[in-house]
Amino acid sequence: MSNRNRKRILIENIRPLVDNGLYPLKREPGDWVPVIADIFRDGHQKICAWVEYKSSGKKHWSKVKMDCTNPGLDLWEAGFQVEQIGFYDYRIASYCDDFGTWLLDTGKKVEADTDFASDILEGIALIKNYLSWLPEYERAHVKNILKKLDKATGDMQRWQLISCPKLLHILENHPDPASRVESDKLKIRVDRVKARFAAWYECFPRSCGFEPGVSGTFKDVIKRLPEIAAMGFDVLYFPPIHPVGFSKRKGPNNSLTCSENDPGCPYSIGNELGGHDEIEPSLGTFEDFAELVAACEKFGLEIALDFAINCSPDHPYLKEHPDWFSKRPDGTIKFAENPPKKYEDIYPINFESSDYKSIWKEMRRIFLFWAKKGVRIFRVDNPHTKPFAFWSWVIEEVQSKYPDVIFLSEAFTRPKVMKALAKLGFTQSYSYFTWRNEKQELTEYFEELTTPPESDFYRANLFTNTPDIFPTFLQGGGQPAYKIRAVLAATLSTVYGIFQGFELCEGIPVPGKEEYLNSDKYEIRTRDWNAPGNIKELISKLNKIRKEYPAMQEYDNLEFYQAENNKVLFYGKSLGDQHLMIAVNLDPFVTHSSFVHVPLEKFGLGPAQEYQVHDLLTDRRYLWRGSKNYVELNPKVEPAHVFLLRK
Amino acid sequence: MSNRNRKRILIENIRPLVDNGLYPLKREPGDWVPVIADIFRDGHQKICAWVEYKSSGKKHWSKVKMDCTNPGLDLWEAGFQVEQIGFYDYRIASYCDDFGTWLLDTGKKVEADTDFASDILEGIALIKNYLSWLPEYERAHVKNILKKLDKATGDMQRWQLISCPKLLHILENHPDPASRVESDKLKIRVDRVKARFAAWYECFPRSCGFEPGVSGTFKDVIKRLPEIAAMGFDVLYFPPIHPVGFSKRKGPNNSLTCSENDPGCPYSIGNELGGHDEIEPSLGTFEDFAELVAACEKFGLEIALDFAINCSPDHPYLKEHPDWFSKRPDGTIKFAENPPKKYEDIYPINFESSDYKSIWKEMRRIFLFWAKKGVRIFRVDNPHTKPFAFWSWVIEEVQSKYPDVIFLSEAFTRPKVMKALAKLGFTQSYSYFTWRNEKQELTEYFEELTTPPESDFYRANLFTNTPDIFPTFLQGGGQPAYKIRAVLAATLSTVYGIFQGFELCEGIPVPGKEEYLNSDKYEIRTRDWNAPGNIKELISKLNKIRKEYPAMQEYDNLEFYQAENNKVLFYGKSLGDQHLMIAVNLDPFVTHSSFVHVPLEKFGLGPAQEYQVHDLLTDRRYLWRGSKNYVELNPKVEPAHVFLLRK
Repeated sequence: MSNRNRKRILIENIRPLVDNGLYPLKREPGDWVPVIADIFRDGHQKICAWVEYKSSGKKHWSKVKMDCTNPGLDLWEAGFQVEQIGFYDYRIASYCDDFGTWLLDTGKKVEADTDFASDILEGIALIKNYLSWLPEYERAHVKNILKKLDKATGDMQRWQLISCPKLLHILENHPDPASRVESDKLKIRVDRVKARFAAWYECFPRSCGFEPGVSGTFKDVIKRLPEIAAMGFDVLYFPPIHPVGFSKRKGPNNSLTCSENDPGCPYSIGNELGGHDEIEPSLGTFEDFAELVAACEKFGLEIALDFAINCSPDHPYLKEHPDWFSKRPDGTIKFAENPPKKYEDIYPINFESSDYKSIWKEMRRIFLFWAKKGVRIFRVDNPHTKPFAFWSWVIEEVQSKYPDVIFLSEAFTRPKVMKALAKLGFTQSYSYFTWRNEKQELTEYFEELTTPPESDFYRANLFTNTPDIFPTFLQGGGQPAYKIRAVLAATLSTVYGIFQGFELCEGIPVPGKEEYLNSDKYEIRTRDWNAPGNIKELISKLNKIRKEYPAMQEYDNLEFYQAENNKVLFYGKSLGDQHLMIAVNLDPFVTHSSFVHVPLEKFGLGPAQEYQVHDLLTDRRYLWRGSKNYVELNPKVEPAHVFLLRK
Repeated sequence: MSNRNRKRILIENIRPLVDNGLYPLKREPGDWVPVIADIFRDGHQKICAWVEYKSSGKKHWSKVKMDCTNPGLDLWEAGFQVEQIGFYDYRIASYCDDFGTWLLDTGKKVEADTDFASDILEGIALIKNYLSWLPEYERAHVKNILKKLDKATGDMQRWQLISCPKLLHILENHPDPASRVESDKLKIRVDRVKARFAAWYECFPRSCGFEPGVSGTFKDVIKRLPEIAAMGFDVLYFPPIHPVGFSKRKGPNNSLTCSENDPGCPYSIGNELGGHDEIEPSLGTFEDFAELVAACEKFGLEIALDFAINCSPDHPYLKEHPDWFSKRPDGTIKFAENPPKKYEDIYPINFESSDYKSIWKEMRRIFLFWAKKGVRIFRVDNPHTKPFAFWSWVIEEVQSKYPDVIFLSEAFTRPKVMKALAKLGFTQSYSYFTWRNEKQELTEYFEELTTPPESDFYRANLFTNTPDIFPTFLQGGGQPAYKIRAVLAATLSTVYGIFQGFELCEGIPVPGKEEYLNSDKYEIRTRDWNAPGNIKELISKLNKIRKEYPAMQEYDNLEFYQAENNKVLFYGKSLGDQHLMIAVNLDPFVTHSSFVHVPLEKFGLGPAQEYQVHDLLTDRRYLWRGSKNYVELNPKVEPAHVFLLRK
C-alpha cells in the first residue's frame, strides 16, 4: 500500500519484444526501434508518456514523447534510432497530466459559460505545485505567468493567461514525478551493419595452394584475395586453422586410416604444437596470419574464424585438464560417439565437468586471443551441443570487450533450438535455406524469417553449400542450379555465403548422400579458379547490385508477390523510392514463363501507368504497364531477373 | 556462473497465460487447466518434465508428467483439474533424463552388435548415482537389481537386467535434482461455479412494494421471491440499500428539485443515520435483511449488493474524514463533476488523498461488514474511476477472508480498461452486449469474449437492460425485441441478467436517449408483475434449459455456425455428446427464414444421416438431414429456436 495514491497508470503489451522482453531485440546502427504499448489510467484524466533510452554504458537517458495514436484502444506509439554498437536500454515512463486535465475540464466550463472562478484558483495552485519539480530553466517563464495572473483582473483574462500554449507546453513536459509509472527496462543489441549485410566466402587455406598435394598457406590466400574481392565478397571464412591431431587422423573421404602425407581433418584440433590458440604450421606463422589480416583489410575483406570445441586425442587439454573430459569406468577418456557411430579422432569437452568454470574461462580466453589478433567474426561449430548458459555468458563477455564481434551459429537442428541460440546472443544463424527449393516452402520460410517476431532476433546467413552439405538440388542441376541458388541466397537475405568451388559449379557427390566426394575436409586440393563454366560473373554482379542498392541491404523488407507459374518465384525489396523485383525460375531444367503481378499501389504506380523495369543482371530494359506482366526465364541462359523499377 | 553445469534446459512460451503470467488464469472448480510449453535442451540427450501444482494455501505440490507431443517442435503438454476455490500455484519443472539417455544410446550399440561392456559399467555407476536422491520407497527395487547385476555373467544378461521397464520407470520418474530447471510460478484464480454460471435479477427493493408512493421493503421482497425463483433466477441484485442523502436530493427523472416525499437516488449514499454500513430505514432493519438473506437461500437465490463509492453531502465521512475529499481553494468540499455537468448530490472520495491508506482500509471494512452479513456477491459501481491498484488490493484482501466472494465490475468504458479490471481481480464484468444487435458485431464480439486469451480472464455478465440503460433496440421493438435479447443474453454467455420490468417488456424512454422515463432510480414505483404481454414464461424456459443442460453452463464452448440469412444468428454449445443449437431472428419486425449449416463432423453425424432437432422452447421436434437445413422464425410467435440434437 505504500505511496500508491498517485500511481494510477498501467503500461501493457509493449511491442515489439522478444519473448516478452526476456531477450533483446537485434538492430544495427541507424535502425529504427518502434515502441508500441497500451497505456491507460482509471478515470477520464489525461496522461502522457515517454520512451526513455540510452546506450547501456551511458548514464543519461534520452527521451522521446509518445503519441496516443488510437485513444479508443489506448494505443501509444513512439520510436527512436540506435547509433552505437553494443546494448541499449529503454523503457516507457508514463505520468498523470494534471495540468492538461485541468485545462481541458476548465475549458469546457469556460465554453459552457458557467462560473469558473474557483477553477482558476485551483489552476494557479496547481501551477505553483509544478514549481517544486520544474527544472530551473523552465521556472522563469512560469513564475512570470504567475505574476501576471496575480495582477490580472477578471477570470476571463486569467483564463487567457493560463491557457497559453507555451505554459501548457512546459507543464505537460514536466508532469508530477510522483505519478510516474515505468515499464521494465528492456534491451536492444546493436551489432555492426556487417551482422546484417555481408557476403561470405568460405575456403580452406590449405586448398588455396597451387601445387597438388602441397598445403596452401596464408601467403597463398593473399594471392587469391584480388579474385575473391573482385567477386564482391566481404568476409573470408576459414574452417579451423589450428594444428591438426595425429592420433586416429582421418584419411581422404573420412577414411579411418591415413597415410603419412594426409593432412587430417582440421576439426580434429590440437597436437603437441598446441591447440586452439596455435596455428597449423603448414599454413604459416602468426606473422603470416597478421599479414593476411592486413591484406584482407586492403581488399575490403574480413577474416572469420571457425570456433569448434573439438579436441584431437593429441590436444594439450587432454593432458593439462583430463577432468574436462568424460571418462570411461576404466579411467580412459571418451571420444565422441553418436551410437553406434564412433568419432575416435575427436574428444568432446564435457561441460558438465565439476571444473566447468575453468572450461568457460578458457573458451573466453581463446575468443579474446583471436579477437586481439584482429579476428572479429567467429563461426561457431555446432553450438547446439554445448550449454545454452555457456553461450549467453561467453558471448556477452567477449562483446563487452570487443563490441564488434559477430558470432555465427552453425546449428542445423530443431527450430526451437536454433531460435534459442539466436535469442541468447548469437549474432547470426545458419538456416534451412539449403533445403528449401520450392516456391511454397521458400515463401513460407522467408516470410517467417523476415517478419517479427523472428526478424527481431534471428539473422539468417544463407549458405548455398558448405564443406558438409552438397545439396541434392546442386548435384543434379548443373550450372543453372548453381545460378538459381546464388540468386536466391544473395537476394532473399542480406547475409549469405558460398563455400569454395560453388562458383565453379563443381562437385562430385558421395553416392546417395548430400556430401562431397574428395572433400577438402580430409585432403589438400587445388583448383583452377577460372575453370570454364564458372559463374563468377553472375556472383560479382549480384554482389555489386547488393552494394549499389540500399534496398538490398535491409533484411526485413522482403515481400513476395504473385507469379502465376508455380515454378517462378517473384519477390521484391523496397526502401523509400527504390524498388527491386526479383523473378527466379526455380526449375534448372526447363524454361518457364509466367505472368507476374506487380504491387502497383506499393510502388506508387497507377493502374494503367507505363514504367520501365531494368534487369540489372543483363542490363536489358523492358516497358511494363499495369500489374500483370510477362516474364520468361530460360535457365540455360539466365534463370533470374533482378529488376530495378524506373518510373 | 555458479553451479550451472547441469542446467541445460530452456522452458519457453508457456500457454495459456494472461499477460505472460502477470495475472492469473480464471477457472471454476472442476475445470481443466492445460499447460503447454516449448521445452528443450542442447545436444541430443533426453529430458523429462512435470507440471507441479497446488492450492496456494497448501504446502504439498501435486505433479503430473508432461508428454512431448511434437518432438520436432519441442512441444510438451499436460494439464490438471482445479477443485478448490481460491488461488492455485503451478509451474513447470524439467530435468535431464540421464538414465533414459544412457538406455537409448546403449540400446543402439546392443542392436548394432558393437562392444558395450564399458557402457554397462557406466550404466551401473549411473544407477548408483541415482541412489543418492531416490526416495526410500524406490530404493529396495533398485538395490535388488544392482545386486543381480553384480552376480550376472555376461554383458547381454546385464543388459537385460538393466533395461527392464520397472527400473526405467523408477529412474525416469526420479531424475537428477541438480539438473532441475523450473519456470516462474504461475497462478490460477478459482472462483465458485456461480462466477461463471448464474442468472441475475436486478431490482430496487423499494420498487417491490404494493402501494403506490410507499416504499417497498425487504419484507415485500420476500413476498416476491417465489415468483423470481420461479423464473429461474439465482442472484437477486439490489442497487444501494443504504440511507439516502437529503441535501441536494434529486427528484423524479433526475430533477434538481425534489418534494418532501421523494425518496432520492440510492446512489447518493449516506445521511445522519449512517453510510455504507447502514440500511435505509424505509427498507427495513438488519433483522429484516437477515430474514431476507435466509429466505433467498430457501429459494436458491443469493443476494448481490451494489458497492458504489459515492457519498451524499450528508454522508458521515464528510465530517469524520474531510481529508478524504477534494477541496476547493475556499476550503469547501467538491462535488462530482464531468464538466460542464455537475452532480451536486454526490461527493466522490479522493483516492489521491495523502490519507488514502485509511480510505483503502475503510473500503475493505465495508466489504467485510456485508460479507459477514451473508453477502458474497458485490456489483461494483464504476470501478474504472478508482485506482487499479486499490481494486487489486481490496479484492485480494476480501477474498483471502471470504474466498467465495464474487466481484462484478460495472465499467462501461474503453476495452483495455475493462479488460484490465478483469485481469487484476474482478470476477465478472459487464460487457458491450447491450449495444451489439447485428450478426457480424455479435459474432465478432462473442468470438473474442469466449476464446483465449480473453476467456481466460474475462467473464462477461450480459445485461439486457439496467436502470441506466434502456437500449434503443428494446425501445422500438416491442415484445419480440425483449424476447430476442432474452434468448441472446441467456445463451451467448453463461452469466446474464435482467433489470426488473424487462420481463414485462415495459419501459418509456426519455426521448432521444437510452434512458428510462420515471426511472426507479429517482422514485418509488409499483408494477403489476404479471401484466399482460410479459415474457416470464420464455425467461423461465430459458433458465430451465440452462440448468438442465450442462453444455449451456460452459462459457468457452460457444461456436458460431453459418446461417445464410444475415438476420438469422445460428450458434451452438456442446459438451461431450450434448449439442445445443440456437437460431435467433435478430429482426423483431419481420419473419426471416434461412438455411442453416449444421457442423456435422463436430456432432459426429454422417453427411446424409437423419437426426432430430428438438426445440426446447416449443417442444416441437424436426427431422433434419445433412448439413444444410431450413428454419423460419416469426418474431411475433417465437423469434428463436433452442434445439437439442437427438440422434
